[in-house]
Amino acid sequence: MKMKNVSGYKAGPKGFLFSSVEAAIKKLGRKDITLIYSEKEATMSGVFTTNKVKAAPVRIDMNRILSGRGQAIIANSGNANACSGKQGLKDAREMAKLVAKELKLSQGSVYVCSTGVIGMPMPMDRVRAKIPELVAGLGQGTLSDAAVAIMTTDTFPKIVSRNVKAGGRQGTVTGICKGAGMICPNLATMLCFLMTDLAVERRALAGALKWAVENSFNRITVDGDMSTNDTVLLMANGLAGNEMIRRGSASFAAFSSALSSVAEELSSLIVKDGEGASKFITIVVRNAKSRKDATEAAFAIARSTLVKTAIYGNDANWGRIMAALGYSGVSINEGKTDIYFDKVKVASNGISTGRDKEATTILKQKEIKIVVDLHVGSASSKILTCDLTEEYVRINAEYRT
Amino acid sequence: MKMKNVSGYKAGPKGFLFSSVEAAIKKLGRKDITLIYSEKEATMSGVFTTNKVKAAPVRIDMNRILSGRGQAIIANSGNANACSGKQGLKDAREMAKLVAKELKLSQGSVYVCSTGVIGMPMPMDRVRAKIPELVAGLGQGTLSDAAVAIMTTDTFPKIVSRNVKAGGRQGTVTGICKGAGMICPNLATMLCFLMTDLAVERRALAGALKWAVENSFNRITVDGDMSTNDTVLLMANGLAGNEMIRRGSASFAAFSSALSSVAEELSSLIVKDGEGASKFITIVVRNAKSRKDATEAAFAIARSTLVKTAIYGNDANWGRIMAALGYSGVSINEGKTDIYFDKVKVASNGISTGRDKEATTILKQKEIKIVVDLHVGSASSKILTCDLTEEYVRINAEYRT
Repeated sequence: MKMKNVSGYKAGPKGFLFSSVEAAIKKLGRKDITLIYSEKEATMSGVFTTNKVKAAPVRIDMNRILSGRGQAIIANSGNANACSGKQGLKDAREMAKLVAKELKLSQGSVYVCSTGVIGMPMPMDRVRAKIPELVAGLGQGTLSDAAVAIMTTDTFPKIVSRNVKAGGRQGTVTGICKGAGMICPNLATMLCFLMTDLAVERRALAGALKWAVENSFNRITVDGDMSTNDTVLLMANGLAGNEMIRRGSASFAAFSSALSSVAEELSSLIVKDGEGASKFITIVVRNAKSRKDATEAAFAIARSTLVKTAIYGNDANWGRIMAALGYSGVSINEGKTDIYFDKVKVASNGISTGRDKEATTILKQKEIKIVVDLHVGSASSKILTCDLTEEYVRINAEYRT
Repeated sequence: MKMKNVSGYKAGPKGFLFSSVEAAIKKLGRKDITLIYSEKEATMSGVFTTNKVKAAPVRIDMNRILSGRGQAIIANSGNANACSGKQGLKDAREMAKLVAKELKLSQGSVYVCSTGVIGMPMPMDRVRAKIPELVAGLGQGTLSDAAVAIMTTDTFPKIVSRNVKAGGRQGTVTGICKGAGMICPNLATMLCFLMTDLAVERRALAGALKWAVENSFNRITVDGDMSTNDTVLLMANGLAGNEMIRRGSASFAAFSSALSSVAEELSSLIVKDGEGASKFITIVVRNAKSRKDATEAAFAIARSTLVKTAIYGNDANWGRIMAALGYSGVSINEGKTDIYFDKVKVASNGISTGRDKEATTILKQKEIKIVVDLHVGSASSKILTCDLTEEYVRINAEYRT
């Protein structure tokens, strides 16, 4: 397994143990259940999908997170436990309960997450049988194993870590996530587990997480589909021994900044690993009337299958960007709009600059930046996306076969 | 050229003449300018793209249609004359002007339409040189030629015709259109020219057109992108000699029904010819809280790239339909939702019925109906779409190359 995408990770935050096992939920030969355990009960915060159809584990976690506390997360890949009715809720509860029993924790302090196919019953016989082995393995498994075990169509594990000095101590913020398809604003088929050994006051933790998610996972799109399972969980166990981080302090700013940095890099890794993606695209909309307008315009471009296929085909077809701006619903003035591919201005005041050839050269790069200057205000926004390829179609046509 | 998609067409409405020429705007060897001429000035009505970025000819026609009159339409394929600035407006006006001069019409009675690549200057030298030949050919060209000349990535011409008795006479309503990609609600890269020899009062004509478009071109999607050029023009020249059709009459009902029928069949031909499409998909949402909810839910499913790729892959992955319903924003109750592929119920009360295998057989058909019963109200809506294939990606990655 290539580990080039492990960013800044040397040692994780103190007091977190990992274990992963294979329960044959996904393809044979791949681990598919992972357990994250904090030696000390952690302060916790979470962000969940806004899809009205929520998977069973999401519904359970949304309830448990109200306590602001927790000590373990069990996560499986291969089966989303979504659209699974009462049996699904029962299964998700049982997964957490079995872990709680082995670890002698209260049921409410164990969170459960699932990702994979929707609408299939969880193979509880196989899951149940593996829980003792899963718990017994704590301390032997690694964070990397955990990052691998939560993958579905991901092609590489995603781990990002930052050290941060806060409250008089050196602490660490580390996250793992999985993504790949069904990636959309307001989260996706995306599971992300963030851990820190810093002590962070509960409301401060929630505030930092909200800010981090808003500027990372809510600013990416692969295919515009929103999942039923998206979950971000953040555990802070305080084992760094720092003075409690509270809102408004310098320590809070340092912690929040480190957390945002981890989330942003994880979200960009999700886009880079977008299903079938051959190119990583950053879309910046500048000088919009409002931040909301800038974001909506950028998303309209990012979601346009015509823009995404043009970029895949190295075609500087900026007219498709203009068309997307036109139907985005935001305030634009066609005759004032400029469009750039990296530094090459392809449209000036809404019409061609004749520099398509230069732009085509830029499009051959693996990472492309599209800048749209609307010249109607002063707000800007940035969205990350990827191109749309035959491989995306193939992956999703054959996903269950 | 296969003509199997000429529906109901024997002879067109009286008094309409056609001519098509090749001006090397698109690939060599294909006619790319067409002229539709009514021997008698016609009452006219039009519907145009709601994209804020409107092509030059759209802007001109939107102005001209205010007169409610017209006698000719010049339409070219290969170049959209969009994002073309002042020069584009000048070029569009000149195209109409040259036709008007040859035909001795007022400039305002000639409409101009373009479809093709955005952001390229119109090759006016070649267009200008061909106008005399275009006008001279009137009466020699056929409606079929016209339907072919407006094609871009379309794989077949689209002609639909209906006879209708109204106002004491037999009349004909005939339409041609082109579509293929950038197809979205509220029109698309879609040009549609509708002609009738019936005499229809101006407001009645506008009312019938609005109704027809609402239930046809505004109920289809191929890729969710909305064009800068979408135009529907309707000409009624009265040469059938009928008593004027006015709103509220039995004749109006007959005419409106025929017009809607033509528009609906043309719109379904556009979807059947969707870029790269291998399957024609009808999505019906039943028992929604409101008509708006039903339409939005159906569009969310129709636009989901994950649903479209699953159907392409013969995968009865109804979980993706549930996920799309969940993020559509409409009122749903997951535990009450039923999903069918044709008559096979794959999800009942939000969970699997275990009939995926039967559904897979259905998915191998070329035409598939997905029915979602929300059981939360009594409104329903129907949307037409197609699957998403590698071929779609290929067509749009290579469109300008």
